[in-house]
Amino acid sequence: MFRKTRLFTPGPTPLLPAAQFAMAAADIHHRTAEFRALYTKVLAQLKEFVGTKNDVLLLSCSGTGAMEASVSNLTSPSDRILVLSAGKFGERWTALGKAFGCNVDLVTVPYGETFDLATIKAALKPDTKAVYVQATETSTATRHCIQAIAKVIQATTPEALLVVDGITGLGTTHFDIDGWGIDVLIGGSQKAVMIPPGLAYLSVSDKAWAAMEASKNPRYYFDLRKERKSAKAGESAYTPSVALIAGLGAALDYIAGQGGGDLAKGRIALVENAETCAAMTRAGLVALGFTLFAPTAPSAAATAVSVPEGLDSGTVVKELKAKFGAVITNGQGDMKGKIFRIAHLGFFDYMDTIALLGALEFIARDTLKLPIQLGQGLAAAQQVFADRKENQVLNNPCLCGRQTCCRS
Amino acid sequence: MFRKTRLFTPGPTPLLPAAQFAMAAADIHHRTAEFRALYTKVLAQLKEFVGTKNDVLLLSCSGTGAMEASVSNLTSPSDRILVLSAGKFGERWTALGKAFGCNVDLVTVPYGETFDLATIKAALKPDTKAVYVQATETSTATRHCIQAIAKVIQATTPEALLVVDGITGLGTTHFDIDGWGIDVLIGGSQKAVMIPPGLAYLSVSDKAWAAMEASKNPRYYFDLRKERKSAKAGESAYTPSVALIAGLGAALDYIAGQGGGDLAKGRIALVENAETCAAMTRAGLVALGFTLFAPTAPSAAATAVSVPEGLDSGTVVKELKAKFGAVITNGQGDMKGKIFRIAHLGFFDYMDTIALLGALEFIARDTLKLPIQLGQGLAAAQQVFADRKENQVLNNPCLCGRQTCCRS
Repeated sequence: MFRKTRLFTPGPTPLLPAAQFAMAAADIHHRTAEFRALYTKVLAQLKEFVGTKNDVLLLSCSGTGAMEASVSNLTSPSDRILVLSAGKFGERWTALGKAFGCNVDLVTVPYGETFDLATIKAALKPDTKAVYVQATETSTATRHCIQAIAKVIQATTPEALLVVDGITGLGTTHFDIDGWGIDVLIGGSQKAVMIPPGLAYLSVSDKAWAAMEASKNPRYYFDLRKERKSAKAGESAYTPSVALIAGLGAALDYIAGQGGGDLAKGRIALVENAETCAAMTRAGLVALGFTLFAPTAPSAAATAVSVPEGLDSGTVVKELKAKFGAVITNGQGDMKGKIFRIAHLGFFDYMDTIALLGALEFIARDTLKLPIQLGQGLAAAQQVFADRKENQVLNNPCLCGRQTCCRS
Repeated sequence: MFRKTRLFTPGPTPLLPAAQFAMAAADIHHRTAEFRALYTKVLAQLKEFVGTKNDVLLLSCSGTGAMEASVSNLTSPSDRILVLSAGKFGERWTALGKAFGCNVDLVTVPYGETFDLATIKAALKPDTKAVYVQATETSTATRHCIQAIAKVIQATTPEALLVVDGITGLGTTHFDIDGWGIDVLIGGSQKAVMIPPGLAYLSVSDKAWAAMEASKNPRYYFDLRKERKSAKAGESAYTPSVALIAGLGAALDYIAGQGGGDLAKGRIALVENAETCAAMTRAGLVALGFTLFAPTAPSAAATAVSVPEGLDSGTVVKELKAKFGAVITNGQGDMKGKIFRIAHLGFFDYMDTIALLGALEFIARDTLKLPIQLGQGLAAAQQVFADRKENQVLNNPCLCGRQTCCRS
């Protein structure tokens, strides 16, 4: 039978057709009025999408480039920073801190878990310059409660900067950048904004701009001060990824459309969409006898699922691709072979989600030899979709995207 | 929640991405060596795909243009023709015959049914010039057994030409053009070959070429003799739809790939794919309490489904689009409001099919208020997919695509 290739990976995510068309049409020189109009529009859209009064900058690099920029621009060698690490991307903060000579304090929790606030409080020192954390740890599909973490920092070391990797968190969990005091929030193009990899963006607070002036690190391509200056003139400091910027504009137009023309509402619709796909997926897989890997703080960006002892999650990934054309991901690092991960961030809908569960029933039955009845996972997911009310996320006072906030 | 637009219509059908890319790249002048190489390749592929030693021609028009060409080129005013009509497209043969002054004999059956061979035999006259029929009547999703009809003609009036509208039949049912003696077989681009509308193609037998010389009808754009002459020189008689031809080439490459590099095997894979999608759909909808509109001779091109008395099938079409982004079609003509139709021809796969059934469960429950349990249609479709063996169509001696042929 035919098999269409469909990405269910937490980046890259499925491309928005309107963004693909805009990319194909982007035959624009980057030092022209035409590009300046495009760039100015996209930066303004991005600011609304992210939801902040702070500056929002675009960089032509992957999310890791923006992570590096938020270390190299904000610290100096021997500065003390606190890294909150719960997986592969938390470990990347540590590696970046060390690469730039920081004195790295570390709060770690096992893969699949989130942080204890008292431990964070105890780890904050009077001279902690900045705290680095993920909003959602993609490698384990775990969500950290940034609102609660921000509160602890404000109460303990209000001088410390809060830098949040929202690469898979943006569009899958709610943020109030200005209200909570997030100094830097980082996003990537191949995630909830539905375009290919190659762009990163970040919001930068006044406090972060002030810190930047004090940094003694050498910087050039990732010198955010230069980018801010260029952005004010409608350009990028260096040759930008023009087609991706055109695609991003089209994607933000689409997201605005999902919010009735309002990008802030579109961002909420995006989170809610991911939550619905995630809730259906979790219910369907639990009904098939699978165990969720991060049950206490699951992210809506992706769902991580454990395979029964003695089985290899790589087989699930491989067979699903071979038999159905659907691409999911294995665990990373220590989790390889133990979990598989299914993405919900970005351009996914009900039909994608239910179709993947149908295919996974066959993988569960025929590849993993689990004792299931065909249809039992699907029926559970159907019930979740039936019960899911529009806008229920909006009624959640903590804005964390879950009915009962883990930290409230 | 997000809703991707997905066509489940029996033309246009979902576009093959590789064909879209080829179309976008088709910046070619049609009177150049580059185009001649493309056109010659595509015509040769098409001949293999259709499966004949006869000439195969491409026309830049919709399928109806090729239907007209097979009337205007093969008949003269007052010629007797026999039209076998079982729906809207059968009626089109009658309209075309009358438009060109033919003396039209008619065998009709009610919508949703197929023909009785004895009735066809009785309707054939010694001076019947040609018989016009659909392989699959798209308006009712019914399949006619061309093999059996061809046999009756051969046995009764072997001089008569057999002209088959295979617009939705090609790629959803098997043909042996040369073995059965099909003089003209017509296909369209927006059907099983996965590209947009705008191209038609037809195979033409030696007997049909001979008849063409005798025709007294005025012809110009649709003069097939001119097209044959141009095609031999690697060109089309008039300005062709270049991008669609490039797209068709890419689609035929894909279909060949599905047959391990062999277009004839790819065509069989295409039929089998449609059969699997159709079988899943029928089982799923019957499990939900729906009644199939053409249960005795269902086509694999599409499935037509009756809605319960007093309900409007247009509501199903409308709500499915509004709630899930999936586009199916209402009945045509007298059937409007009574049936809805779901396509299986072309670029559909398991995941498309199971996802649509999931969405239809909600339409059945919430829009039509049918007393169903969520999951019951899905479970039935899952079982069909589980039971479906690869290549079972190939083992069917009558090549009609069904386990028990209606006419063998």
